[in-house]
Amino acid sequence: MIKVGIIGSTGYAGAELVRILMGHKEAQIVWYGSRSYIDKKYYEVYQNMFRIVEDICKDDNLAELCEQVDVIFTSTPQGYLAGVLNDEILSKVKVVDLSADFRIKDVDVYEKWYKIEHKSPQYIEEAVYGLCEINRDKINGNTRLVANPGCYTTCSILTAFPMVKEGLIDVNTLIVDAKSGTSGAGRSAKMANLFCEVNENMKAYGVASHRHTPEIEEQLGYAGNCSVTINFTPHLVPMNRGILATEYATLKRKADGSLPTYDEIRAVYDKYYKDEKFVRLLDKGVCPETKWVEGSNYVDINFVIDERTGRIIMMGAIDNLVKGAAGQAVQNMNLLFGLDEAEGLNLVPCFP
Amino acid sequence: MIKVGIIGSTGYAGAELVRILMGHKEAQIVWYGSRSYIDKKYYEVYQNMFRIVEDICKDDNLAELCEQVDVIFTSTPQGYLAGVLNDEILSKVKVVDLSADFRIKDVDVYEKWYKIEHKSPQYIEEAVYGLCEINRDKINGNTRLVANPGCYTTCSILTAFPMVKEGLIDVNTLIVDAKSGTSGAGRSAKMANLFCEVNENMKAYGVASHRHTPEIEEQLGYAGNCSVTINFTPHLVPMNRGILATEYATLKRKADGSLPTYDEIRAVYDKYYKDEKFVRLLDKGVCPETKWVEGSNYVDINFVIDERTGRIIMMGAIDNLVKGAAGQAVQNMNLLFGLDEAEGLNLVPCFP
Amino acid sequence: MIKVGIIGSTGYAGAELVRILMGHKEAQIVWYGSRSYIDKKYYEVYQNMFRIVEDICKDDNLAELCEQVDVIFTSTPQGYLAGVLNDEILSKVKVVDLSADFRIKDVDVYEKWYKIEHKSPQYIEEAVYGLCEINRDKINGNTRLVANPGCYTTCSILTAFPMVKEGLIDVNTLIVDAKSGTSGAGRSAKMANLFCEVNENMKAYGVASHRHTPEIEEQLGYAGNCSVTINFTPHLVPMNRGILATEYATLKRKADGSLPTYDEIRAVYDKYYKDEKFVRLLDKGVCPETKWVEGSNYVDINFVIDERTGRIIMMGAIDNLVKGAAGQAVQNMNLLFGLDEAEGLNLVPCFP
Amino acid sequence: MIKVGIIGSTGYAGAELVRILMGHKEAQIVWYGSRSYIDKKYYEVYQNMFRIVEDICKDDNLAELCEQVDVIFTSTPQGYLAGVLNDEILSKVKVVDLSADFRIKDVDVYEKWYKIEHKSPQYIEEAVYGLCEINRDKINGNTRLVANPGCYTTCSILTAFPMVKEGLIDVNTLIVDAKSGTSGAGRSAKMANLFCEVNENMKAYGVASHRHTPEIEEQLGYAGNCSVTINFTPHLVPMNRGILATEYATLKRKADGSLPTYDEIRAVYDKYYKDEKFVRLLDKGVCPETKWVEGSNYVDINFVIDERTGRIIMMGAIDNLVKGAAGQAVQNMNLLFGLDEAEGLNLVPCFP
Repeated sequence: MIKVGIIGSTGYAGAELVRILMGHKEAQIVWYGSRSYIDKKYYEVYQNMFRIVEDICKDDNLAELCEQVDVIFTSTPQGYLAGVLNDEILSKVKVVDLSADFRIKDVDVYEKWYKIEHKSPQYIEEAVYGLCEINRDKINGNTRLVANPGCYTTCSILTAFPMVKEGLIDVNTLIVDAKSGTSGAGRSAKMANLFCEVNENMKAYGVASHRHTPEIEEQLGYAGNCSVTINFTPHLVPMNRGILATEYATLKRKADGSLPTYDEIRAVYDKYYKDEKFVRLLDKGVCPETKWVEGSNYVDINFVIDERTGRIIMMGAIDNLVKGAAGQAVQNMNLLFGLDEAEGLNLVPCFP
Repeated sequence: MIKVGIIGSTGYAGAELVRILMGHKEAQIVWYGSRSYIDKKYYEVYQNMFRIVEDICKDDNLAELCEQVDVIFTSTPQGYLAGVLNDEILSKVKVVDLSADFRIKDVDVYEKWYKIEHKSPQYIEEAVYGLCEINRDKINGNTRLVANPGCYTTCSILTAFPMVKEGLIDVNTLIVDAKSGTSGAGRSAKMANLFCEVNENMKAYGVASHRHTPEIEEQLGYAGNCSVTINFTPHLVPMNRGILATEYATLKRKADGSLPTYDEIRAVYDKYYKDEKFVRLLDKGVCPETKWVEGSNYVDINFVIDERTGRIIMMGAIDNLVKGAAGQAVQNMNLLFGLDEAEGLNLVPCFP
Repeated sequence: MIKVGIIGSTGYAGAELVRILMGHKEAQIVWYGSRSYIDKKYYEVYQNMFRIVEDICKDDNLAELCEQVDVIFTSTPQGYLAGVLNDEILSKVKVVDLSADFRIKDVDVYEKWYKIEHKSPQYIEEAVYGLCEINRDKINGNTRLVANPGCYTTCSILTAFPMVKEGLIDVNTLIVDAKSGTSGAGRSAKMANLFCEVNENMKAYGVASHRHTPEIEEQLGYAGNCSVTINFTPHLVPMNRGILATEYATLKRKADGSLPTYDEIRAVYDKYYKDEKFVRLLDKGVCPETKWVEGSNYVDINFVIDERTGRIIMMGAIDNLVKGAAGQAVQNMNLLFGLDEAEGLNLVPCFP
Repeated sequence: MIKVGIIGSTGYAGAELVRILMGHKEAQIVWYGSRSYIDKKYYEVYQNMFRIVEDICKDDNLAELCEQVDVIFTSTPQGYLAGVLNDEILSKVKVVDLSADFRIKDVDVYEKWYKIEHKSPQYIEEAVYGLCEINRDKINGNTRLVANPGCYTTCSILTAFPMVKEGLIDVNTLIVDAKSGTSGAGRSAKMANLFCEVNENMKAYGVASHRHTPEIEEQLGYAGNCSVTINFTPHLVPMNRGILATEYATLKRKADGSLPTYDEIRAVYDKYYKDEKFVRLLDKGVCPETKWVEGSNYVDINFVIDERTGRIIMMGAIDNLVKGAAGQAVQNMNLLFGLDEAEGLNLVPCFP
């Protein structure tokens, strides 16, 4: 049985980790870290866990934690893990970091977009970007540190990945217009996230400045073996969960000037995703809906070719707390420990 | 492996049965009945089931169905099962009926409240009212027909049951003010259930005339061994799932004129529910919230004593599609086949 | 032109006052008080007011404010007005208080339920409880201080008033089960009011202890000329605006033991409300819905007689920010200054 | 007093016309047309209008209607008006058509996108596209037929208009990603619009095929004096009202290769909109939110320049039922009859 510690277990992503791990046959949470609720019963913070979790919230004493667990999930504010990580920790436990601290290889880019100094750049190189469908072969028993991808980025990258990888689109025309439920904003008490401010409302935010932009660019750059600069615009939607990414790019034309056909592009998507358990390429003509993946680790993807404009419109949907955070973190843990990648993640989407 | 047939598998309750049974280790759905979608792939009706269910929707040919399955769930309009049930069916398969056809023992009461003629009253007597926590000992391998309780009734009865059973309240003062999410209204295309009609709105309906009233009265009557006449008022709430019942009753005073204490009443609730897996008596002062049970088979219950008025206010919350329909139906199936009552029902509530 | 000052103009009720007064022909806001946003443009706090309100938020310097305005609305936390009110203020301006400070005549009751000391009990006696439909004749040019009723109380009292006034119900059986949208919780940043905590959720709160209880009891006591003790249970509903009160009481029977008829009770409601502009008695069989009054000053009321239990179920719906707060405050202002009571309040409900 | 007839008064847009015209000082509705509810009281269809509208719904007898009114609003399915319009009608009354029948000048384009035959193409030429801010000078006492713009198109066009008009963007790079509340889908009982299908869900629809696409292209083509082909992707959002358009286009660079500055582009927007009552250019850095225009005729617009990609991101928000339908129709009526363009439209946005 893998022993698990969670730092930041009382945020929404942390709580989703707890929910998912309750159904994991090979893992057991032994440390519910939560600086805000030390000594409080976990179920008093999340009453849905009443009679399910009897543990008390603990602090984030990493030295002690390292002695008790096999893997640590850090679902913490940006900068936390970079500030405390050291060789001793990495020698004793595996770390899956749900924050952005080790996602971006170029520390200058990190510091510019996140506006904080990176305190342990020496670990960036070895950290594996944990987008399992793409980096699966780098995540195994030898891996010490996994940078769990962001919610928007997971959805945005997977939706466009085969097109970029195969060089079928002009990457510099790529525009990602993303829409997210409000749990992505976290559980802290901010006026902007009050029910009456979000409900019956919709807005863009972080326009041309959102921190997930360089993360998408870096990963798609690896895929296309080129530099990628995109527009990424997140929007806040009055729903709890779900991210929908609508992505636009100009298709490269064939030698005869014609566009690739639906079947040709479908074959490319199939090439990468046909055998992926958690990626569902929908039938032709069916647009992804966030509700169809709610509570599950699926990414639903489809695309439409617009003959008039020569563009492809790609659409992807995930549950931001599952595939966009806790579910993917567990998927990474499964890979780290050589388990069935889907263990604990056979979650059937809940509708309605 | 128990073979399962569902008649009405494309309604919301039917779809929840499918979701739950996907995680049941001893049961397998072999017949997805849906008169409206015959020959259509099930996942085309519920895209959340894409890549999970590959079956085609079938008709409701019970003669054929009986040959193929061990148990039939009927999630059908009132009157359907009563219209088709016969000895042959009951000799071959067990039936768990999610409609109201066999819930009420007095056929006149049924016909008066439901305004339809009962076509097979001969089976009413043997049907067991499948409120597992109360009638568990009557649901076993010998039982042929289970009347799965209504959503409002499950919540309303369980919330008040210990008080009525122990004679601690004046049952004729009992008032049940219940609030339900919109999935309780089903998936049929009615203007009153359009998003724009329900969203940002709240109303009572079926005031003093809702069909769940006699069902609650009958069952609480058995509990209290007395005649019970109550007010039951359902309300429609702009949320997908969840029922909250707020119940009011005058406490019987002790010989010295004093009211029972919190601890005394708590002890009574504990007597009946302490060992019940799916009933959670919340800590003192914590009011049930529907979100805390969403997606699970739990009933969360608590109460407050009002010294000023001498009344007890009892509150219960369930997920109307789980404990109020499909979850309880599976719980009944487990009892019918001698399985662990919780098999397939270890569902952790999803929050947020 | 009446000059208006608002203390607490950046809360939800304050903002609704601003919205309503924009359409008032005889009043002009000259002081937007907001301790939290001093020197900030009002529209920066409420962008819906961009290009409509150009004013800057000011402090709550009452001495100065008194010199500039004819009437002050205080939409402030409990205890604020009681702490600052004095003879000079009342000699210069009229005050409409949207807080609870002067609603309850018995200072002990106030202090017990609100758990704060009342700092100026000497003004309680003269304060008029501003439920216009009932106390209209006490609100005029001579009135200095109006205690604007609470949101739940406005709805709860008006729904039951004729029945209590005419002695048709046993007041001690009265139970008020009320449901409110989330704007009633105000605009302060509390975790419990975050979108993800309220959305898809429903709960009771303040059970047997909510502060609006004694206010309802006092006013219905005046109506019935008797002591009234009730159960009042508020619930939080995932919608922005709206209160629905469902009220239960045992009907007094006639000498022959029969219940009053629908027409008889309807005549009683008509007696009090037929000529009331803002009270709409719905047609027989139509239940009030909060959406039908949204954005307006209406109270929609109806009732059902349950012959089986001998109870009447009364239902009332208001917009908590309009008739439950700002609209009624303006209605009171109109009465104070001898204007048409409906000036500025001809607001057509917005649907959907 | 202008006498108004509405054909289709019981759809959501028709009902919004009624709401708005209740506050219009120079117009009076004398004909509430509704084929579905003939002889039913209007308020029985929209209970918010109880005690406000006492009229009965009538058929769509245009011959009779023409004798009684000065202007007809047709809020009807596509093809209706084209099927019944004739010279006699146009000789007697003015017509403001909220359907798409006369919006598109090229009948082939209309027939291709709408997939219906246009029954009276002879009136297309004279119909004025009623986007008041742009075509104001063509809408006056001589105009007989106004094609009221679509909801998505109003928002999409106004948001990009100054940029296209002044040739500051490469129009062929224009991408419009639009999000709409559910009232845009109308009041007909369709399963896809049920509360439980829309709530907690988000999806794109009509990708590369939505009918508002050619309408946007045509109007922006007039603005830019060029052919325009765009991608337009609508999305369904779980809220009642509101459209948010997020638009992307590549900025033309200056001779020196630099991008235009924020101030330069702001000046262009100001040139067209500074004096427009219903267009609000927000302060720098403030993104439009649909809630801030709810219930009003405003369009809130802003933009961000992305130096990294050389694109401008333009954002616009409207209430789809007001500026996107009924409000703009009334604005057109005001122009047709020489009234103050804002009469009846001084609607303050409602928040929250």
